[in-house]
Amino acid sequence: MNKIQIIDAHKHVGEKVKIGAWIANKRSSGKIAFLNLRDGSAFFQGVVVKSEVEEEVFQTAKNVTQESSVWVVGTVQEDSRSKFGYEIHIETIEIIGDAVDYPITPKEHGTEFLMDNRHLWLRSSKQHAIMQVRNEIIRATYEFFNQEGFVKVDPPILTGSAAENTTELFHTEYFDRDAFLSQSGQLYMEAGAMALGKVFSFGPTFRAEKSKTRRHLIEFWMIEPEMAFMDQDDSLEVQEKYVAYLVQSVLDHCDHSLDVLERDKELLKQYTQLPYPRISYDEAVELLNKNDFSVTWGEDFGSPEETFIAEQYDKPVFILNYPKAIKPFYMKPHPTREDIVLCADMIAPEGYGEIIGGSQREDDYDALREQVEAFGLDTKEYEWYLDLRNYGSVPHSGFGLGLERVVTWLSGTEHIREAIPFPRLLNRIYP
Amino acid sequence: MNKIQIIDAHKHVGEKVKIGAWIANKRSSGKIAFLNLRDGSAFFQGVVVKSEVEEEVFQTAKNVTQESSVWVVGTVQEDSRSKFGYEIHIETIEIIGDAVDYPITPKEHGTEFLMDNRHLWLRSSKQHAIMQVRNEIIRATYEFFNQEGFVKVDPPILTGSAAENTTELFHTEYFDRDAFLSQSGQLYMEAGAMALGKVFSFGPTFRAEKSKTRRHLIEFWMIEPEMAFMDQDDSLEVQEKYVAYLVQSVLDHCDHSLDVLERDKELLKQYTQLPYPRISYDEAVELLNKNDFSVTWGEDFGSPEETFIAEQYDKPVFILNYPKAIKPFYMKPHPTREDIVLCADMIAPEGYGEIIGGSQREDDYDALREQVEAFGLDTKEYEWYLDLRNYGSVPHSGFGLGLERVVTWLSGTEHIREAIPFPRLLNRIYP
Ligand SMILES: [Mg+2]
Ligand SMILES: [Mg+2]
Repeated sequence: MNKIQIIDAHKHVGEKVKIGAWIANKRSSGKIAFLNLRDGSAFFQGVVVKSEVEEEVFQTAKNVTQESSVWVVGTVQEDSRSKFGYEIHIETIEIIGDAVDYPITPKEHGTEFLMDNRHLWLRSSKQHAIMQVRNEIIRATYEFFNQEGFVKVDPPILTGSAAENTTELFHTEYFDRDAFLSQSGQLYMEAGAMALGKVFSFGPTFRAEKSKTRRHLIEFWMIEPEMAFMDQDDSLEVQEKYVAYLVQSVLDHCDHSLDVLERDKELLKQYTQLPYPRISYDEAVELLNKNDFSVTWGEDFGSPEETFIAEQYDKPVFILNYPKAIKPFYMKPHPTREDIVLCADMIAPEGYGEIIGGSQREDDYDALREQVEAFGLDTKEYEWYLDLRNYGSVPHSGFGLGLERVVTWLSGTEHIREAIPFPRLLNRIYP
Repeated sequence: MNKIQIIDAHKHVGEKVKIGAWIANKRSSGKIAFLNLRDGSAFFQGVVVKSEVEEEVFQTAKNVTQESSVWVVGTVQEDSRSKFGYEIHIETIEIIGDAVDYPITPKEHGTEFLMDNRHLWLRSSKQHAIMQVRNEIIRATYEFFNQEGFVKVDPPILTGSAAENTTELFHTEYFDRDAFLSQSGQLYMEAGAMALGKVFSFGPTFRAEKSKTRRHLIEFWMIEPEMAFMDQDDSLEVQEKYVAYLVQSVLDHCDHSLDVLERDKELLKQYTQLPYPRISYDEAVELLNKNDFSVTWGEDFGSPEETFIAEQYDKPVFILNYPKAIKPFYMKPHPTREDIVLCADMIAPEGYGEIIGGSQREDDYDALREQVEAFGLDTKEYEWYLDLRNYGSVPHSGFGLGLERVVTWLSGTEHIREAIPFPRLLNRIYP
């Protein structure tokens, strides 16, 4: 007899199989019990008919509690009434571990309570569906960059210096010196691109930000591609192709999860159509001020401004060429405008905010050294980075995509804390 | 005219193309110059014949310095004499960024010097080849676990508690409390397995270990799969299948890199043959003591012991069921022997040491709580972990594979510091 996972039930119709599972839910009458079984791979229904099994089996099915673990043996059958399409007619059921008073019941719970029980909350169908979408986005990311000839480079997490904002850094002692947790692997990815051409990273980054918004995590995962011999226009093409690939992959492989999440698939299909629209920062300021916003040229956009801009389009939109003064030191100035840089943010539709930030990098040694100094950074810590412009500098561009932002968007989730298995938030490091 | 990468040259034979590249090396006579070009994707030869180009082009080719970056235009041709199989006959060459006195020359350099210049050292052909092997191992890891129905789960890096040894933890302040950098995501992966069935992680882990061996990094990447409803025997089967898959993938996709590294491919082929041998800890002690070692039952093996055991086999070997006293608190005791646990280490051949550690996990609530207390851990921080045994506990097993150990082994590299782009070592956090 085969031991199978629920997800593979369709391959075993008419067969007697053994499945290890938990009781997600159940209902029963005097003659029949329906067990909603989950084994992590999927959910489906187990049916126990009183007249067809030993009395003890039926009693076990009637009395088994939510989230108890069981081995069930039975025959897989097609079940056209259910979304999943299959069910199991149970012959025997054996309790492995019981669960008394499982804390998360079908009733409503408060957010703090669910977050305290995140290790259990992950078992519920909506969280399960979000994690499937996350998994697919990760899978498709590797597939995309491998197909496009990128090499995975893992930049270090512990660094002696900071790429951007030094007030939001986690500090640690590294033997006899100070070290910080990486906020971005970009500078290292640039060295990677000079050695390996087209590279991408996928790893955790950290911002000790005292903000409590539905779009921010303290610890989050970023994908940071970097490409030698490619300018900002080349990079924009890679970015939109990549994001469209993610959307299409989720549509192709997460159909059931999208149903559970009640996500509008027609809307998602729109997001696979390229190219994505582009609007310059200058144009965006003008657009906003024509529409009752009051933005001064030189300011960054906040969430309401980004949302308004996104609402003008039915796809993600690029905002191009921001003022130099509000962007990091390493961005390359526009060739004919000293006050703006060759950069773009990609803003997701439906108010999900910025999902990508990218730019062409300053490739002139003297200009970059000036920038390092102007930003008050410790030149000594950046000597290696400056070297990249000293020994065969080339035009190069890259970008960073925030994984949880994209998971939140594609799964249609309200708050980013549900887009990662164990969120780290202000005052939240448990479980 | 197409702009191409060197790796794609075979698709453009006879075509005139443009390539951005660096000068890895060159030699020239009065009539011809051979430029060893690299663009990160691969290395190949550019040929400049004095009689066929403008005088200025030939002079540029003769004078261009090592690691200067260039745009070359020319025609791709087959070149049966070279390993790569293709070369480019250059018509024009344009310097993008010159490189004066590139520090890494073809002569020998000391390790500290090369490590100080790691950002440049990565450009050299051997380091390039190791990074290609690393990339392939990562690619194949995702492919394998996706094929096998595993879901990627990213455990947190910042945690309020420690899984194992608390003296080797990096500490940081997490707003108003203490936090530590993860040494292993395993405990979280167990929660993941209870929600998603079969899960795997791929992320950085940290050990503040004051050791200086050729097998240890302070920051290293681990793959940690965890499987619900699977016992230790099931887990061993997944482990050997996974490792054989990695070896085969490297053989299939890194042929040229293995040549550069002078790695014996026949030896690697042996490692794809399953099953891998298994020897118990008890038998290993006996074997060692018969061969002039002096091991007392209950001690852990050191590197010489592991190497001796590995030398008895022509494939990786599992050492099973170590003494409970030298293993972490979460391992499940052997059903008929209280003094040993259901665990295994996989030892690589050729003296490359342990590459996997794994076990079946304690699934009994009371026994686990006792262990948490016996190890002097803060029970409060482990309540969530204990919950996994309180609400539908199931047999489950998992393991951790050290990425850089496997990269070192498969690439045949002497020291693990070359198996990661930017190694963190005792007293080394730059660049
Ligand atoms: Mg922005
Ligand atoms: Mg060991």
